[in-house]
Amino acid sequence: MTRNLSIKAERIAADIGELAAITEPDSPWTRRAFTPMFLKGRAYLERRFREAGLRTHVDAAGNLVGARKGGGSQGVIMLGSHSDTVPNGGRFDGIAGVAAALEVARALDEAGIVLDHDLEIVDFLAEEVSIFGVSCIGSRGMLGLRPAEWLERQADGMSLADGICMVGGDPSAIGGRNDIKAFLELHIEQGPVLERDGMDIGAVTAIAGITRIEIVIEGRADHAGTTPMGLRRDALTSASRVVLGIERIASEIARGPSHFAATVGEFSMEPNAANVVPSHVRMLIDARAEDPAVMDQFQDAVVALTAQTAEKSGVTIPAPRRISNNPATPMAEPVVALIEESAKGLGASSRRMVSGAGHDAAFLAKAAPAAMIFIPCRDGRSHAPEEWAENDDIALGAAVLYETVLKLDKQ
Amino acid sequence: MTRNLSIKAERIAADIGELAAITEPDSPWTRRAFTPMFLKGRAYLERRFREAGLRTHVDAAGNLVGARKGGGSQGVIMLGSHSDTVPNGGRFDGIAGVAAALEVARALDEAGIVLDHDLEIVDFLAEEVSIFGVSCIGSRGMLGLRPAEWLERQADGMSLADGICMVGGDPSAIGGRNDIKAFLELHIEQGPVLERDGMDIGAVTAIAGITRIEIVIEGRADHAGTTPMGLRRDALTSASRVVLGIERIASEIARGPSHFAATVGEFSMEPNAANVVPSHVRMLIDARAEDPAVMDQFQDAVVALTAQTAEKSGVTIPAPRRISNNPATPMAEPVVALIEESAKGLGASSRRMVSGAGHDAAFLAKAAPAAMIFIPCRDGRSHAPEEWAENDDIALGAAVLYETVLKLDKQ
Repeated sequence: MTRNLSIKAERIAADIGELAAITEPDSPWTRRAFTPMFLKGRAYLERRFREAGLRTHVDAAGNLVGARKGGGSQGVIMLGSHSDTVPNGGRFDGIAGVAAALEVARALDEAGIVLDHDLEIVDFLAEEVSIFGVSCIGSRGMLGLRPAEWLERQADGMSLADGICMVGGDPSAIGGRNDIKAFLELHIEQGPVLERDGMDIGAVTAIAGITRIEIVIEGRADHAGTTPMGLRRDALTSASRVVLGIERIASEIARGPSHFAATVGEFSMEPNAANVVPSHVRMLIDARAEDPAVMDQFQDAVVALTAQTAEKSGVTIPAPRRISNNPATPMAEPVVALIEESAKGLGASSRRMVSGAGHDAAFLAKAAPAAMIFIPCRDGRSHAPEEWAENDDIALGAAVLYETVLKLDKQ
Repeated sequence: MTRNLSIKAERIAADIGELAAITEPDSPWTRRAFTPMFLKGRAYLERRFREAGLRTHVDAAGNLVGARKGGGSQGVIMLGSHSDTVPNGGRFDGIAGVAAALEVARALDEAGIVLDHDLEIVDFLAEEVSIFGVSCIGSRGMLGLRPAEWLERQADGMSLADGICMVGGDPSAIGGRNDIKAFLELHIEQGPVLERDGMDIGAVTAIAGITRIEIVIEGRADHAGTTPMGLRRDALTSASRVVLGIERIASEIARGPSHFAATVGEFSMEPNAANVVPSHVRMLIDARAEDPAVMDQFQDAVVALTAQTAEKSGVTIPAPRRISNNPATPMAEPVVALIEESAKGLGASSRRMVSGAGHDAAFLAKAAPAAMIFIPCRDGRSHAPEEWAENDDIALGAAVLYETVLKLDKQ
């Protein structure tokens, strides 16, 4: 494929390597937002932003911003991702996107290119579920989408408001930027599709909606030794039928044309005592859909499933409850097309795909045309120490990002 | 049916009522061994034992014993059960047996009967799983069957040795009584069989063996949003197949001639995070069998089940591990026959049955001919506040106990 000579793969590798070294030593790779280790990572990034000729500041929402003045006054092209990790997370989730954006700024500088637009490179605050139990704090904050009551959340002896102050933000300011011309985020896929299909680049067309559905099963606690098999109301065996039913329904829907996945990720049982028939199970379904109608179809099927299971097994299952619902976010079609065009120009293969994971780009998309560039990661692993992306793949993604910025700037 | 005029139902009701009042006030009915509330219950029982003409002492194992001298020197007929409860337990489990035994002593006294044998009424220490995590401490201790290392167990700032001292025992003494001619324990069934069959009395032929089998399922933690349904190794869906397989196998075996039940009572999952495909499940089977060969048949079927499940779903399931194994204890056939005869003499209906629950009688049976008298309880409920037995049913059981003592004494 055509090499993009502006992007220097080794500088991306160096930044990712330096950030990887900034980890809680006993649990690589951990750099959770609002911890001293996070501030250490931020200090490294700020220095590198400056060395790339960017003017740096922390905005009111707590995001680290590196700005590069453009020649015109047509608004901001923004590139970014996040440097925080989950506990025992990986070296690439978020970080690859920040390092790639930084490399784009460096490459523009070296090439002596002055864009018409201002350029901003952003390390968004706390994209991952943070110690405060919520995620995408920085991107929501930047756009005025952070719920006011979140500031009162407590963790590690501080409020989220304290945490935002600690990283250099101003929790009293209400965001709402409207000067963003376009937003681009490079990210590892966190799934196995690009690797399986042998594709270099994923042009993300939508970020799937996330719906969480809670199911509670009420059986009866009986003595495990004395209650004959036929006279039980075992919440666990009923729950097992529900789990397998959910898997069956989700697999069927996923064979359809639009992106869908569902997982029972939380599952707990009471009394959880060896010699007592289980009386209570609570489970939480995480369902991801590109199309809200498909999500409704899934929920209807789950409601029917639980009703049938309750009827057959004598347990009680109240109607499954949708406890959260974030609808899918489409990416901006013209920007997606530019990504494909840039990939093609570089000789890179690409495919359109839906992001099953949430990203800061979902919030940026509410204020500006936004799109994402996915690059492959090994075996689809993420949020785990073994998360891995080849540096050449990241560099190729960065080159696509660079070309897309140039194309956007001309529009 | 024929009334036994010696046994006074109202005295049994009074004792059970008084003991019920001795409960942790916020969590009826709770009187756990080694707590101040337990000592309060013991003080009540000791007073009542004395009022019934019994000489009382606490033996080295910590059991409260009320003794009644016989006319001969042919050994001891022992009656007993336990006054401790599980947390939020019931008013009858154990307690009905102590109250019935006490009433037998009172009735003998009133009738002016001097038995050939010495009679002992025993409140065994800590039959339930105690704060020290082990059960049947008193009956094991009396017979020299209490593991020496148990004395080191710690709970609530004391060792089990301290706990035994606290109730008036001597942990340094090694039990091993061999003067017991026969042992009888009246107990609520803790299951629904007598009630379902409309039977007054259960003549227990064996206490089922308890085997605990641990199963671990290793899947793979993947991102719930990005991992396509077909590319998962979900430990929870595989575990659900195993749970339903265990239910199917156990139900099939339970339709056979010998008592069997199996329960997955403990079940836990990792990472138990909403957005992560479950990677690890651990479950514990509690299996009860009258016949060790049937237990082996069950385990073989579970091993085959887990192997098939692992093969089909791509998870890893190491061979299920038998982590504890207490074989079934047969009751003494001649004593069982005397119970049936006594019931018949009183016009009470009876059936032979296996106890699915463990009891002090299982340890007494290692040193003496032993048997148990079951009486019905409502809806099979036990180890729960709603546990209930009709006082007339307890009194009828006590009358059977009384008649059986008279018959045993004549042998």
